[in-house]
Amino acid sequence: MSNAKIIKLTVSDVRFPTSLEQHGSDAMHTDPDYSVAYVVIETDDGLKGYGLTFTLGKGTEIVVCAVEALSTFVVGKCLKDITSDFRSFYRLITSDGQMRWLGPEKGVIQLASAAVLNAVWDLWARAEGKPLWKLLVDMDPVKLISCIDFRYITDALTEQEALDILLKGQEGKQKREEQMLNEGYPAYTTSCAWLGYPDQQLKQLCTVALRDGWTRFKVKVGADLQDDIRRCALIREMIGPCNTLMIDANQRWDVEEAITWVTRLAEFKPLWIEEPTSPDDILGHATISKALAPLGIGVATGEQCHNRVMFKQLLQASALQFVQIDSCRLGSVNENLAILLMACKFQVPVCPHAGGVGLCELVQHLILFDYISVSASLHNRMCEYVDHLHEHFKNPVVICDAQYMPPKDPGYSTEMLEESVSRHQYPEGEVWQNLRGKSTD
Amino acid sequence: MSNAKIIKLTVSDVRFPTSLEQHGSDAMHTDPDYSVAYVVIETDDGLKGYGLTFTLGKGTEIVVCAVEALSTFVVGKCLKDITSDFRSFYRLITSDGQMRWLGPEKGVIQLASAAVLNAVWDLWARAEGKPLWKLLVDMDPVKLISCIDFRYITDALTEQEALDILLKGQEGKQKREEQMLNEGYPAYTTSCAWLGYPDQQLKQLCTVALRDGWTRFKVKVGADLQDDIRRCALIREMIGPCNTLMIDANQRWDVEEAITWVTRLAEFKPLWIEEPTSPDDILGHATISKALAPLGIGVATGEQCHNRVMFKQLLQASALQFVQIDSCRLGSVNENLAILLMACKFQVPVCPHAGGVGLCELVQHLILFDYISVSASLHNRMCEYVDHLHEHFKNPVVICDAQYMPPKDPGYSTEMLEESVSRHQYPEGEVWQNLRGKSTD
Repeated sequence: MSNAKIIKLTVSDVRFPTSLEQHGSDAMHTDPDYSVAYVVIETDDGLKGYGLTFTLGKGTEIVVCAVEALSTFVVGKCLKDITSDFRSFYRLITSDGQMRWLGPEKGVIQLASAAVLNAVWDLWARAEGKPLWKLLVDMDPVKLISCIDFRYITDALTEQEALDILLKGQEGKQKREEQMLNEGYPAYTTSCAWLGYPDQQLKQLCTVALRDGWTRFKVKVGADLQDDIRRCALIREMIGPCNTLMIDANQRWDVEEAITWVTRLAEFKPLWIEEPTSPDDILGHATISKALAPLGIGVATGEQCHNRVMFKQLLQASALQFVQIDSCRLGSVNENLAILLMACKFQVPVCPHAGGVGLCELVQHLILFDYISVSASLHNRMCEYVDHLHEHFKNPVVICDAQYMPPKDPGYSTEMLEESVSRHQYPEGEVWQNLRGKSTD
Repeated sequence: MSNAKIIKLTVSDVRFPTSLEQHGSDAMHTDPDYSVAYVVIETDDGLKGYGLTFTLGKGTEIVVCAVEALSTFVVGKCLKDITSDFRSFYRLITSDGQMRWLGPEKGVIQLASAAVLNAVWDLWARAEGKPLWKLLVDMDPVKLISCIDFRYITDALTEQEALDILLKGQEGKQKREEQMLNEGYPAYTTSCAWLGYPDQQLKQLCTVALRDGWTRFKVKVGADLQDDIRRCALIREMIGPCNTLMIDANQRWDVEEAITWVTRLAEFKPLWIEEPTSPDDILGHATISKALAPLGIGVATGEQCHNRVMFKQLLQASALQFVQIDSCRLGSVNENLAILLMACKFQVPVCPHAGGVGLCELVQHLILFDYISVSASLHNRMCEYVDHLHEHFKNPVVICDAQYMPPKDPGYSTEMLEESVSRHQYPEGEVWQNLRGKSTD
């Protein structure tokens, strides 16, 4: 690798007016405008890296402001110096003596760290001429470990344990890589049953999805019990008893309420209840897990779990049965590596959160690496898929027969089309200018 | 109360160059420039409310940006409409369907919520012509309860239980109020032993503090064990065996490391070890608490505990023996009320975090209310005090014989001197212009 220096970082506020059609609506986020803080870094030899973090519209400008604050840690650095001691660079970004007060490692500042670090990983993968998953799969285990900040997790996973997991994962790696290239990684769909969709739309989307080969379906619940019963009955009837159903409450309930409510929906045989309560409530999730285990319903959570310390505890407390990593909330690949390794040690399957803008594009790389080099298992594992907004990416996900097909282009699949970025810039982009024009007509 | 409408919100980035003299330095924050995002709201009848949240310098502009985003929820609202259903207003600020993705209720967005809501509470207290603590003490318990968002904490504290605590607190309230007005609330000092201070300075400050009547002292530890042993020995020798010593690691350690390190310092008889590890690590704090209990050392934490869900779990897991509320990280008075009531139910003493900029000014109101109306106890209770930057406040704290004397002016003691704000505005204020001038000389 050349010793290219990062000489420029730009960040844009890019928003899609998804709330107009209730795409992405759930019990807590009733009108999201799917958005990103979009980062482009550039080296003195002309290579670019692209990164993003996902948001729901309002407040994206705050994340943009945070990325600008973090840019001082990036601009001027050589890519080789970063990747030769990525752990130190990770800590520089996430643990600055003044900035860490704003987190630490949570909320806006962690989302911004993710966007910046995602761009660095994309740059690295491009510099190596490999898709990110392949960069990870080919990387020496010792080098992989050196990208992880083990601070605060050594009581659950030591460096040596992590290394042992990766060394064990070398066995059969080649075969699993070939398998992925041929078959792809199993996916499930959330596109059929957003909370704001009327029953007719839900039926229609479900029919199409079944025809397209989908076998795993997620339904949003939590706003009204009678609605949930009706919608779950409808979906279960359409997909039949053998396909998989998951339900997702997006943090709507208190602990006792979650248990009562989900018990009422048990007859529809959901595999998991996702985000039953506050993402911060480790002990609450443990109580819910314990109460629902006899019903055969697991607890899934993670899309708003902000760092490795929280995931560590969710695992230690047996508070979740499905680990939902997110490529844009955790501290990029570095922190996701820590979660994958902890999940492996605790023998809990990883089923990534995706959807939004670009989350499918990014997280497919992580789950491919997980299968090929860490977990070596597909049991109870699948990656979320939502079929929105992929057209804005240069290398959008490829789904065949409800499986994610491994990306082949170099990088982290993070690059957006220039025209999409420019048209959706907030507030000055054409799309938003037109919407404002309409609303003042 | 008149139906005054809030017609304006302004926010400033105000920074003090405290890093120049190592004030505030600790094992994780080696060079803080104590700062605030400072909020002023104004009603159409000319009343003003002042609010702030504390930061460490870099990144304050991100909090300012977040306050600006939240201002749309405040400007145009009537004070009476807010206070007649403060729970709903709290949820409006903290749980907007698009903005909550940036937290929820954590990090930058929660700090910004605190600044905005602190200004609203200041406005309310001023409108009633009372200092905030007195507004709370005089408030009907049912009304107090209506200010709290119980979402996610009902498994630990129901509304009815909270009400019962407050009703019980009515007994003897008058007497305790008189006691506070006469004697004040016990304080401890952190001013003697910042990590960056050389031994000579530490000795000198300790001598002065003892002369001024201080009996409780906190020492920063965690960077180097031999240094800690020397410094703790020095302080313990100076204050004698009967005065109280606390130690504070500011999150420096992993779980096992914390136990080993603190065990080595046990001979100096610290009352508590503060922030031994990540503020997010509830189970880690529980492990540390259990290990240190036989040594007679408690665990204190909270200054970076971001919301009521985290405090709930710290209490449920017996993970802390001292609850350190913060007036500017939690969601203002509303969320602090929830913590005070939970701490009372779990019978854990509250010892507020203070220092920084304005934290002493604000939190004294909360701990006075706690004693008069909730806990009714001073056992193992005291409020942190740091003697920096009070001169920038219109109604600075009054300490007599190491006790906080109850504020008498209307409001939340949040108003800063106009000249201080203007001189320390970042980056355009005179103080920062001069520093830049010097550094380029």
